[in-house]
Amino acid sequence: MPSPDARLLRACRGLPVDATPVWFMRQAGRYLPEYRALRARHGFLEMATTPEIAAEVTLQPVRRLGVDAAILFADILLPLPAMGAPIHFADGEGPVIDRPVRDAAAVEAMRVADPGDLGYVGETLRLVAADLPAGVALIGFAGAPFTLASYLIEGGRSESFARTKLLMWNEPGLFRLLMEKLAATTAAYLAMQIAAGAQAVQLFDSWAGCLAPGDYEAHVLPHSRAVFEAVRAAGVPAIHFAADGAGLLPLLAKAGGDVLGVDWRISLSRARELAGGVPLQGNLDPAVLLADPGAVLAATDRVLAEARGGPHLFNTGHGLTPETPVDTVRRVVDRVHEASAGRKPGWTGGRGRA
Amino acid sequence: MPSPDARLLRACRGLPVDATPVWFMRQAGRYLPEYRALRARHGFLEMATTPEIAAEVTLQPVRRLGVDAAILFADILLPLPAMGAPIHFADGEGPVIDRPVRDAAAVEAMRVADPGDLGYVGETLRLVAADLPAGVALIGFAGAPFTLASYLIEGGRSESFARTKLLMWNEPGLFRLLMEKLAATTAAYLAMQIAAGAQAVQLFDSWAGCLAPGDYEAHVLPHSRAVFEAVRAAGVPAIHFAADGAGLLPLLAKAGGDVLGVDWRISLSRARELAGGVPLQGNLDPAVLLADPGAVLAATDRVLAEARGGPHLFNTGHGLTPETPVDTVRRVVDRVHEASAGRKPGWTGGRGRA
Repeated sequence: MPSPDARLLRACRGLPVDATPVWFMRQAGRYLPEYRALRARHGFLEMATTPEIAAEVTLQPVRRLGVDAAILFADILLPLPAMGAPIHFADGEGPVIDRPVRDAAAVEAMRVADPGDLGYVGETLRLVAADLPAGVALIGFAGAPFTLASYLIEGGRSESFARTKLLMWNEPGLFRLLMEKLAATTAAYLAMQIAAGAQAVQLFDSWAGCLAPGDYEAHVLPHSRAVFEAVRAAGVPAIHFAADGAGLLPLLAKAGGDVLGVDWRISLSRARELAGGVPLQGNLDPAVLLADPGAVLAATDRVLAEARGGPHLFNTGHGLTPETPVDTVRRVVDRVHEASAGRKPGWTGGRGRA
Repeated sequence: MPSPDARLLRACRGLPVDATPVWFMRQAGRYLPEYRALRARHGFLEMATTPEIAAEVTLQPVRRLGVDAAILFADILLPLPAMGAPIHFADGEGPVIDRPVRDAAAVEAMRVADPGDLGYVGETLRLVAADLPAGVALIGFAGAPFTLASYLIEGGRSESFARTKLLMWNEPGLFRLLMEKLAATTAAYLAMQIAAGAQAVQLFDSWAGCLAPGDYEAHVLPHSRAVFEAVRAAGVPAIHFAADGAGLLPLLAKAGGDVLGVDWRISLSRARELAGGVPLQGNLDPAVLLADPGAVLAATDRVLAEARGGPHLFNTGHGLTPETPVDTVRRVVDRVHEASAGRKPGWTGGRGRA
């Protein structure tokens, strides 16, 4: 059973740790042969919505890698069908929203999801928690309102997010209504995950990096903040991650969350200057894991060096890719633990906000 | 004939101006009906390599929009065939390198281009200069060594740039040799453009934003700096633009260039803090140009407000898209000129570096 004093949870709260905790975004995934074996027999959505399978997949990287956290195996879009927007996954083109949400009628028809409709996610977390070694934290997650809105409006992935931005600029009231429904859904969904055993949660704002800071502040920040306030009330730490968010860092820190996830396009030392004293998570370029061993270790050490000066959770700056060699990931985990073990923090404890 | 005292050139040098100069990346392009009319009869490479056509396309937006600069109509990949790497443009998939450059033999076979092989670009510039109204500056351009290297190594566009990064990490000496050849080619190519009449040049590092700052500093910055030193010796201002470069700004400023181009993912006020006193260019989100008139003017005014505090060239943060309404672009040009005319600079003159 998970311990409330796990290394990763202490780092989230800015407390001293015996070694830097490490986990990886998309650590449950196609680079693992045992994942591919299951995936060969089950569809992706079937895996994410069947608690026994999702729990098994969540636990696979914990057994293999020695990471400090398990992260729920799920998809950020799972709440959308419960809001009235069915989705499917098309091979090669990613998620598809069956009926994109682009006008007042469509926004008004969306409902705030009943977390009971996502009960299978709670069941997955309960199964994982029962099997998880003490000291390994259990992380739940959800997509942030803006990222969910962009999928709903675009109908799937986008390069320019032009439809999303045009709704935001041309019909700000309608956009706000959609964001409020998404924030309420996300807050209730994360509260349900926490009640089911999640000891920390990560909010993924995968596409917020497409926005100008002024637009983020006016149209997005208030809704992400509402989600973080709900998580805070539930008493567990929240990690806020926006890919490609270097220009948004001061605002991302303002939106809330106890830890700020950062990708590799900015150094952790610069990110710390921009984000204030909040603990940071990141930020190895996941492509590094495909490189020769010497380059992998040098890049790992560089992240650790740039992280000095405040609390740190080691991670990649984006999800692991299917080509990643498992042995390399395990070597990085070992290196992070060994290189950071017992080292004096370059900061004074308690700078975290939780 | 162009004047050496054009508004845009003064801003590049950090000198006071009567109004903020404005131009747009990809202002010569498919959103203009007169461009589409030519494109219907000629292939893209044919247009870029035929001086009469390229000069006409370069001049089209100047006639339409009232912008303060013409930018050479060309493609960043034109020097590659002159280095021994033939290219073609496939409809819908963008540029293709016929034989990607991925090993020592391929890198060693690349030659530094003889700018004489790109003489058609010089001829285009001479034709444009002869027709350009006084006060409208003529900008030449080239791709930066890293962006050219990534096309050569990937063989075309990429999402992850994994092959490029792996060559950089695993074979840094080989990568450096390729970058040196690209920097020497780019320096000579820009010198030729300047001799043919370019009054300023922009270096496009379109893909540098995929890099961690440490990697940029070690493997890319020295080669971009070599290009800027050559331009400086030729005596015209250089604009340095890296899309999605918010996390790299202090290093991009260090690489050289008299003006730093910034996209919309960071505010110009924050960019100024990070980049020092260098004049800035940017940074309207080009998607704004598809919005309703009120939203367009509000966003234009926000960019002007965030730009106060130092010399500024108004531009979009990325190229104009084919869907952009021409009238909207013209309204933005007028707004920039009217709103900034005669306004006292919020900075003291001469902070530019040229």
